[in-house]
Amino acid sequence: MTTQVPAILKDSADAPFRQGLVERRDLRPDDVRIDIAYAGICHSDIHTVREEWGPCIFPIVTGHEIAGVVSEIGSEVTKFKVGDHVGVGCLVDSCGECDYCVKGSENFCEKGAVGTYNSKNYDGEIAQGGYSQQIIVTERFVLRIPDAISLEVAAPLLCAGITLYTPLKRWGAGPGKKVAIVGMGGLGHMGVKIAAAMGADVTVISQTMSKEEDGRAFGAVDYRATEDGSVFKELRNSFDLIVCTVSADLPLDKYLGMVKPFGALVLVGLPEKPQNFQVFSLIMGDKVLTGSNIGGIPITQEMLDFCAEHDIAPTVETISADEVDAAYDRVVASKVRYRFVIDTSTIAPE
Amino acid sequence: MTTQVPAILKDSADAPFRQGLVERRDLRPDDVRIDIAYAGICHSDIHTVREEWGPCIFPIVTGHEIAGVVSEIGSEVTKFKVGDHVGVGCLVDSCGECDYCVKGSENFCEKGAVGTYNSKNYDGEIAQGGYSQQIIVTERFVLRIPDAISLEVAAPLLCAGITLYTPLKRWGAGPGKKVAIVGMGGLGHMGVKIAAAMGADVTVISQTMSKEEDGRAFGAVDYRATEDGSVFKELRNSFDLIVCTVSADLPLDKYLGMVKPFGALVLVGLPEKPQNFQVFSLIMGDKVLTGSNIGGIPITQEMLDFCAEHDIAPTVETISADEVDAAYDRVVASKVRYRFVIDTSTIAPE
Repeated sequence: MTTQVPAILKDSADAPFRQGLVERRDLRPDDVRIDIAYAGICHSDIHTVREEWGPCIFPIVTGHEIAGVVSEIGSEVTKFKVGDHVGVGCLVDSCGECDYCVKGSENFCEKGAVGTYNSKNYDGEIAQGGYSQQIIVTERFVLRIPDAISLEVAAPLLCAGITLYTPLKRWGAGPGKKVAIVGMGGLGHMGVKIAAAMGADVTVISQTMSKEEDGRAFGAVDYRATEDGSVFKELRNSFDLIVCTVSADLPLDKYLGMVKPFGALVLVGLPEKPQNFQVFSLIMGDKVLTGSNIGGIPITQEMLDFCAEHDIAPTVETISADEVDAAYDRVVASKVRYRFVIDTSTIAPE
Repeated sequence: MTTQVPAILKDSADAPFRQGLVERRDLRPDDVRIDIAYAGICHSDIHTVREEWGPCIFPIVTGHEIAGVVSEIGSEVTKFKVGDHVGVGCLVDSCGECDYCVKGSENFCEKGAVGTYNSKNYDGEIAQGGYSQQIIVTERFVLRIPDAISLEVAAPLLCAGITLYTPLKRWGAGPGKKVAIVGMGGLGHMGVKIAAAMGADVTVISQTMSKEEDGRAFGAVDYRATEDGSVFKELRNSFDLIVCTVSADLPLDKYLGMVKPFGALVLVGLPEKPQNFQVFSLIMGDKVLTGSNIGGIPITQEMLDFCAEHDIAPTVETISADEVDAAYDRVVASKVRYRFVIDTSTIAPE
């Protein structure tokens, strides 16, 4: 017997959200039932339901920044018990056997990991996400939320947090390192907080100076605007690491020019069109251009523990279920400071 | 008093080479005078004298793959003595004081390292390269050529060898790693030999199968041709590291598709035009796109010692001074197997 659970659904790219019910599978032996308290709104949710990244399976429940409390466990679950604070991110399953899964990089599972929404579980069931009061997930993909982090701010860590933590860790953000975060939206503001907590010297590079006060409060020691084109010249060969969170077309040669020899420019935003660059910009300085895509389960848990230990969390605006359409428009217009979180207790099926 | 030394010179982009004299400075206290035995021909020499990379200072003596014997040392030279076998590569000076110089990455000197030709020494003197019977270089930029390597084959290691050794080392070529070398010319054939000696499982990716026998003799375990387009699909997510030595326009998304998650595509060839790629190709798999530009003095010495220890050397065709024009045409036409070396004893000034 499946369960009908209150959720926020969308029936087509053009339809507004509606509050209704979504079906959740029966608990399997390795499953955890989570009573969702909060779900974050990620720009990916918007790209997906607006079919900007390809076809969407409707009706859809989006949301891959999920925080809640364990309400039931399957007979073989060992890692969690009822009452635990837990989270779920962008993935809900993977083969568990390939080299990548075994090494904790489930995001690159050879069989293809199962996304939290707009994808099919291996048994064919459509995966539905976190704008909902309940979700059932195999315990392998459930994260422990430390007590120090409230569920409300924990939610965005599951995507925005890990998206920034992974490249900052891989490319060595830490004491003595100069790190720039390009763009200070939902992703970027977490980048500033995490990089500063790691001990790096953080600069924000934004289009304008409008968020400078926030950026410095989040831990940045410098804040620059690209609308003043001189930044690229002034900061030439300055950064060990630049993490770019914007998904607009990028003047890559200019950004690579700000990277020190042997340093890295990491892209976590996804522009629609191909980007171009001069190979010379990479060769002169053995510079790295790379991308980063969330993280596997072990590094996601590490990120949550790191945020708890360093007392950092996203800056959120909490909304009710009937405000999601308006929130999407504000995300697209970059008018949120800095991440929307839906209080799922407000979902009232019509 | 300066010295007039037999050399092979070019007076303009269109003029043929001529055999004449070039001036060498008097020995300074930290200088080494080298009687050059052999000078390799690098494609960069050709780009430079044909002004494909910008203006060239004529008359020019090209050549940055230099091998010879120490014939005189300055009063403060401590590392070398008369009779030592030595080499000089792409650089002849750097500030010696910046972070990059101090750490042995003189190639990225903040003041700007001095190239072996077509550049000016810090005192304004025009640097002239190795197609010559003698050169004077500060001992900091002189490399020791191990006895196990003959001078004839040592020359091309100073550019082709280090150009491949640096990225293979930085990106972890070794036992258990799958490495592809794209293009098997002067650079590529050294890549195959060095990567195989490092213990990696080496595949050559060439336009055609014409050099397969050589590739396998150099240590490749597989050889594929891109003229059969299926290679990109068959080898999807196959390589920990791909080093691309061609300077043609590149289908970067296809090459990135052959890189494993967390792996790297390193460009050492320099296409003239901007290259483009989908950011998705980097993000899906946290893949690295990077370039590599020769190496500093310590790693160049390490490369020479590695080649001696593993008994590897370039495969060369030795020519006389009057064959340089024809050799350039053959390099451009990819009709050399695999590196031309000029026997400088054949230089006879007119």
